[in-house]
Amino acid sequence: MTKMNIMKNLIVQKYGGSSVADPDRIKNVAKRVIRYKQEGHSLVIVVSALGDTTDELLDLVGQITENPQDRELDMLLATGEQISVALLAMAIHSLGHEAISFTGAQVGIVTDASHTKARILDINSKRIEKELAKNKIVIVAGFQGVNLNQDITTLGRGGSDLTAVALAKALRAPICEIYTDVDGVYTADPRIVPNARKLERISYEEMLEMASLGSQVMQARSIEVAKKFNVTIHVRSSFHNQEGTLISEEVSSMEEVLVSGVSLNKKEAKVTVCDVPDKPGVAAKIFGDIANADVNVDMIVQNVSRTGQTDISFTVDSTELKKAIKAVEKVARGVKAGQVVSDEDIAKVSIVGVGMRSHTGVAAKMFEVLASKKINIEMISTSEIKISILIRKAHAEEAVRALHDAFELGKNKK
Amino acid sequence: MTKMNIMKNLIVQKYGGSSVADPDRIKNVAKRVIRYKQEGHSLVIVVSALGDTTDELLDLVGQITENPQDRELDMLLATGEQISVALLAMAIHSLGHEAISFTGAQVGIVTDASHTKARILDINSKRIEKELAKNKIVIVAGFQGVNLNQDITTLGRGGSDLTAVALAKALRAPICEIYTDVDGVYTADPRIVPNARKLERISYEEMLEMASLGSQVMQARSIEVAKKFNVTIHVRSSFHNQEGTLISEEVSSMEEVLVSGVSLNKKEAKVTVCDVPDKPGVAAKIFGDIANADVNVDMIVQNVSRTGQTDISFTVDSTELKKAIKAVEKVARGVKAGQVVSDEDIAKVSIVGVGMRSHTGVAAKMFEVLASKKINIEMISTSEIKISILIRKAHAEEAVRALHDAFELGKNKK
Repeated sequence: MTKMNIMKNLIVQKYGGSSVADPDRIKNVAKRVIRYKQEGHSLVIVVSALGDTTDELLDLVGQITENPQDRELDMLLATGEQISVALLAMAIHSLGHEAISFTGAQVGIVTDASHTKARILDINSKRIEKELAKNKIVIVAGFQGVNLNQDITTLGRGGSDLTAVALAKALRAPICEIYTDVDGVYTADPRIVPNARKLERISYEEMLEMASLGSQVMQARSIEVAKKFNVTIHVRSSFHNQEGTLISEEVSSMEEVLVSGVSLNKKEAKVTVCDVPDKPGVAAKIFGDIANADVNVDMIVQNVSRTGQTDISFTVDSTELKKAIKAVEKVARGVKAGQVVSDEDIAKVSIVGVGMRSHTGVAAKMFEVLASKKINIEMISTSEIKISILIRKAHAEEAVRALHDAFELGKNKK
Repeated sequence: MTKMNIMKNLIVQKYGGSSVADPDRIKNVAKRVIRYKQEGHSLVIVVSALGDTTDELLDLVGQITENPQDRELDMLLATGEQISVALLAMAIHSLGHEAISFTGAQVGIVTDASHTKARILDINSKRIEKELAKNKIVIVAGFQGVNLNQDITTLGRGGSDLTAVALAKALRAPICEIYTDVDGVYTADPRIVPNARKLERISYEEMLEMASLGSQVMQARSIEVAKKFNVTIHVRSSFHNQEGTLISEEVSSMEEVLVSGVSLNKKEAKVTVCDVPDKPGVAAKIFGDIANADVNVDMIVQNVSRTGQTDISFTVDSTELKKAIKAVEKVARGVKAGQVVSDEDIAKVSIVGVGMRSHTGVAAKMFEVLASKKINIEMISTSEIKISILIRKAHAEEAVRALHDAFELGKNKK
């Protein structure tokens, strides 16, 4: 094959940990890969660590130290993907096809030196191109790279998706397939909304909002990179052959759609700092200290002040609530604010859609729907293509179903 | 520290799989390493894979294919040592000392391309020297290297010992310590001979014979390399602080010692090909075919022929007996030999000592001792510094004790 033909027929496929959880699943992945090969495609396969490998390794770490060095953590965790790629290469080979496995370092995935959350600087794809030209299936360890000092780095959560997208960009692959244990991106969680519909297409922007709203399908970072370099992603299941959801640039047909999906996150908690002096710099001080405590804040609301004092509320991931309260109570005393109150009985419901950009009244409709169900809205936060609200946890599913119905998401729009 | 001082105070230490079998043992190794550091030594630590990691990985392979590619096996198995080095670096760091871990590839252990049994071509020790100069404890993954194509290779059984010896040579370390689960090299197996004595010193040649006679302390290959480059080895236990056994060149005091040890191997089987035509080339044909079947032959005896036909006997490792018989039966038919008979009820007893070179009568004394115990000798094989005999298995321990007594090995010679 000429180099041009190789790249034209190239597919980058990424298989997550659940897709390669045990030898039988690895063999299934091998069969799928070979089917594509037999259809005439060149293939670069990115693999995550086997199911629970990472947890097992972290368990060993926990028995040795509470504060592992980031460089050594990367050295350790990178072995997970190295195991997967070798086993997948063996499985493909045992079925009579040529495959060759590589670590991130071996295929020149060069990153900065930020261990455990490195950023890819460059990919030297020569070795991959050489092996593709020999008609081999190339298997690359996800999640890892190497810095300029030859130290092994890892890319942080969802890093294997990032590896796949970056390789698709470097190799100019027409498509990057992300295989996972869900069928694609849905208008809402099918466990809550029985008539939730799998989306055929979604824009990068919408998918980014979905990711930040708690959708586990893909991490925000790899979608950002795909958007930047216009890499078309196909999210699909590794357990059957049905099409999943394409993530790409907005196309004209998308504009017809007002709202693409409703999402729900029940894993946040609300923190309120009462009686905060309404002076410049106070909010900056509070959220600066929270950030220094390594707590990620999601929604922030500050009421209009009429008395020289105001209440500031924000949400954090429930798992970080204790850490957040500790940091906030300290800074609250420092800025002479009042009590700090927390509330875990909340749910965040969001609607997402690029159509909101050009349509007014979406927020009004959302609030009406909830009012008609007598669901009280406690906080609101909006972006150009998203509206999130905070309500009592008990009303979460009802709100999602009502919004899904009201925006007619169950109906096929094509 | 100046480079010269670093090298003068350098110790290369190697810890085997049993020494790092779990987090507690890894922490113990960390403490030992730190003690040496505090005594003013520079340290390069070579580590094997955690206890049963290799077996677990091979079990995964077994569920996928019976014929894994050697390149992918190396890719897979090399992760075992990578895990160990990262964990040991964390353990040392958690005790307040600076350590840095490396794969074989990262410290420039360049090998040939013979996957699963690669030979070290060169070590580019610059990165290690750089980190030692920063006063860090350097931890290197044993058993592995990288070929000129940047593919990961492994060094075969006992490969971590080889890594340690080769690094000691490359870094000009005055000593290479091999930590293991035995106390050192003994005059005989202490489980058989209660007054067996730990040897303070042994020569490379004697240790080589010991290794080939079934001693599990060190593999022959790393001793060969140590001998070639005159690297002094100290074999000792990682579970206490007592001195073990020094392996070095012969020194004058050694020459006084006639026999250094008695060894026993009960894991061989004898194969006899009867009525072999006594013509040139027949033995070559038989043993050529056995070698082609990948069976290692140990002792070989051919009786004097008076009838134009002869019997040829040889021993193989019991685990390879079936494979050997299959190969031998085929070639026996080819050369028109007679029956092939095998016997697993045998034991090999050997005495080893550089003193044999300059003393006659050692063999005679050995045979006398066995005769006095009415133990029949079935095969004899000798080298310059070793005599091995084959006897019935039932007499094995008795023979070892009698020889140990007769050559006065229990007495301290110093």
